[in-house]
Amino acid sequence: MNLQRLFRPESVAVVGASKTEGKIGYEAMANAVEFDGRVYPVNPSGEGTVFGEEFVGSVTEIDEAVDLALLAVPAPVVPDVLAECGEADVGGAVIYAGGFAEAGEEGEQLQREIVDIADEHDLALLGPNTSGFVAPARNLLASFAGGVERFEPGEVTILAQSGGVAHQLAFHALREGRGVATMVGLGNRANVGFEEAIPYFDSDPDTGAIVLHVEGTDDGRALLEVCRDADTPVIAYKVGQSDVGAFAESHTGALTGDHELYTAGFAQYGVPTVESTTELFDAGQALASSPTPDGPNVGVVTAQAGPGIIIADRLQRQGARLPELSEETQDRVGEILPGITYADNPVDTGRPMPEFGEVVAAVAEDDNVDIVLVYELYEEALGFPLDEVAGLADRVDKPVLFATEGPAESMADDLADLRAAGVPTFTSPERGADATALLARYAGLADEDREVSADV
Amino acid sequence: MNLQRLFRPESVAVVGASKTEGKIGYEAMANAVEFDGRVYPVNPSGEGTVFGEEFVGSVTEIDEAVDLALLAVPAPVVPDVLAECGEADVGGAVIYAGGFAEAGEEGEQLQREIVDIADEHDLALLGPNTSGFVAPARNLLASFAGGVERFEPGEVTILAQSGGVAHQLAFHALREGRGVATMVGLGNRANVGFEEAIPYFDSDPDTGAIVLHVEGTDDGRALLEVCRDADTPVIAYKVGQSDVGAFAESHTGALTGDHELYTAGFAQYGVPTVESTTELFDAGQALASSPTPDGPNVGVVTAQAGPGIIIADRLQRQGARLPELSEETQDRVGEILPGITYADNPVDTGRPMPEFGEVVAAVAEDDNVDIVLVYELYEEALGFPLDEVAGLADRVDKPVLFATEGPAESMADDLADLRAAGVPTFTSPERGADATALLARYAGLADEDREVSADV
Repeated sequence: MNLQRLFRPESVAVVGASKTEGKIGYEAMANAVEFDGRVYPVNPSGEGTVFGEEFVGSVTEIDEAVDLALLAVPAPVVPDVLAECGEADVGGAVIYAGGFAEAGEEGEQLQREIVDIADEHDLALLGPNTSGFVAPARNLLASFAGGVERFEPGEVTILAQSGGVAHQLAFHALREGRGVATMVGLGNRANVGFEEAIPYFDSDPDTGAIVLHVEGTDDGRALLEVCRDADTPVIAYKVGQSDVGAFAESHTGALTGDHELYTAGFAQYGVPTVESTTELFDAGQALASSPTPDGPNVGVVTAQAGPGIIIADRLQRQGARLPELSEETQDRVGEILPGITYADNPVDTGRPMPEFGEVVAAVAEDDNVDIVLVYELYEEALGFPLDEVAGLADRVDKPVLFATEGPAESMADDLADLRAAGVPTFTSPERGADATALLARYAGLADEDREVSADV
Repeated sequence: MNLQRLFRPESVAVVGASKTEGKIGYEAMANAVEFDGRVYPVNPSGEGTVFGEEFVGSVTEIDEAVDLALLAVPAPVVPDVLAECGEADVGGAVIYAGGFAEAGEEGEQLQREIVDIADEHDLALLGPNTSGFVAPARNLLASFAGGVERFEPGEVTILAQSGGVAHQLAFHALREGRGVATMVGLGNRANVGFEEAIPYFDSDPDTGAIVLHVEGTDDGRALLEVCRDADTPVIAYKVGQSDVGAFAESHTGALTGDHELYTAGFAQYGVPTVESTTELFDAGQALASSPTPDGPNVGVVTAQAGPGIIIADRLQRQGARLPELSEETQDRVGEILPGITYADNPVDTGRPMPEFGEVVAAVAEDDNVDIVLVYELYEEALGFPLDEVAGLADRVDKPVLFATEGPAESMADDLADLRAAGVPTFTSPERGADATALLARYAGLADEDREVSADV
């Protein structure tokens, strides 16, 4: 199935567009008009204009074949609207309405009906039962939720089984000054599921990492196989370790399945897994903006010992290693900071200082180190070692991550500068450690995956 | 030992106060002058004034017995300064310098020396090797770190073995619009450790919950006993599950000890434990601002199913229970929202709506429910159900927690209103679930503790 017209349309129709505030047809239209391309409000009972665009009675009356239709209409009307979309050679449709496979036998029948119509017309369906998708770089807001116009362009694509979780992730990214490549809520996955979306975004030039929120799917192996075949890093958050089956089934029509099988399967197919939405986006950000690490050996540089201990402990528990630094590096650190608090790994400088960035660079250049994690509390008089850290990851071809905390307002600009320089930033020692440990695990899984492939 | 003059002084001396920016004696003085009481800069070579206060040559020259001395002097000078403090009848001292028990045999000897001096004069010592403490309600900034003047007064007291972790926690609280009762970095705990500080803050009228960051202590049982004896809720974050002994010893002179023994001990003595700084403060906030729950039964109300599944799953895995709602409640919810998406527990309203607050109130009033957790993505047009949620916890005498996410700027005021109304708020489903699960565990531990006490 070709998803190009669904996710990269030139033109959009909002079917069920409305002038009545609070209606989904109003919210969807309010968002859609932000799009850089052409947008048509469609409603047989619509009169005049809405958000400056003239109402059209049906998609069949538009004098071009619209790429994407956003269906802000109730479930029972969807089959007829889809048939019209097919007739008008629309390429893809987002179906916001619930009342399909998640809602009992009648709904399942309705969903089979719309899949048949879509298949007949080669129409890609996002949903039903989704809040849609958003591609900030093109101002394409195919979601009815408020506030999505604030999302910034970024490198991480979110593929969430739940539209609510997709929005949770994207708003969380926004809160932390991070962007999103494309945010997708898959919903009931009538004919566009993980198996179709992952290959599409793997070849998307804007996507540097794909993060998955998975409740369950009928064909776990197919999901794992598209993950393995992707060149883009993929990370998964599989929900449902305890018995939430009944509630989950009422949601997107999927059972949560056997959690351990999924987790083992993901690992076997080279996909590291995480345990929370925060960890998921942190990991995506770290993978999208970093060189792929060669191994699990982490060099830690900290300006405060307490957070350094938290980091060292958490890294080791998650399978990362803290190698000894080379004698050369120890000598260099000793020269930069005579009488340094602790010159092993972690390197503890005792407090932030002007030489801090030099120490980070020395550790990053150590051949024993595959990944660098830095922690320091922000001091306004010193700021961050931007000059030393910007470009460092590319120069040494290793991920360099930065964890910090401090007065949010006074550090905001300096933190934005770090992010703009491509340095992944985290506001707690644990979040920095978790993202670093994930990179370490990714290095290991990528190795194993290559070995498996070589055997075949 | 009386800690009143250390933590609630009427007057403060900064020994080693300096006019040279960047020196700790300058930073400590810059912070100290914010204090509501009298502040004396002390330096035998000081001339004129610093921050508008006249230099004094020694604490013995001040014509009152100062309550608290902040020692911004190098380690070798500390014994002499402390002897002068004793002579001048100072009540407590904060020792910022490192170079004591964490720094080998010579340092250990120096630490024994200062403890002897302090004991002789009944002087309470915070540190050495700490960044100090902060009590925002009294503008008492006994820390040399920048930005601490921004901390807001709150109900959670932080007792961290590491000054860096204490500041990490307090700055994180600030970032999220939360206050701090007192933030304390204990450092080397020369004669004020957990065993002294916990009973003191247990009787502190400003403290609603005490959160502990523990690396290790020589007398684990004494720590557990003061925790058990405290009426104020105590939560612990024990660091060091993997082998970080050498680095930890170089830090505050303590081994991290046996992690499992600590965790089991805390549970046995009624102290729930957490696994991160974020979880620690979240839990403290939830316990400080909520009625004590009667049991582990959680009623979940969500406006989006996906985050609701995450929450249900995470709660159950951490020992909370999701009871069936009473028939009466189910009927009420059905009347409020005919055709509701999922009227079991979690109650899923499908999307935010004007009736959302009524549904929350109905679930909160259910006798099967001990704790309420609400999740909804923020919608600007609707805001939060402030009227229904404010005062609800007190009325039903149960904790009511609120998790959400949305465009940070547009939701900031509404979120602040919720917090001002005493509702603990969290910006991810997992953080809401973790804080709720901790309340559930706390209810269980409190029960067991009461039973144990009854047996004795």
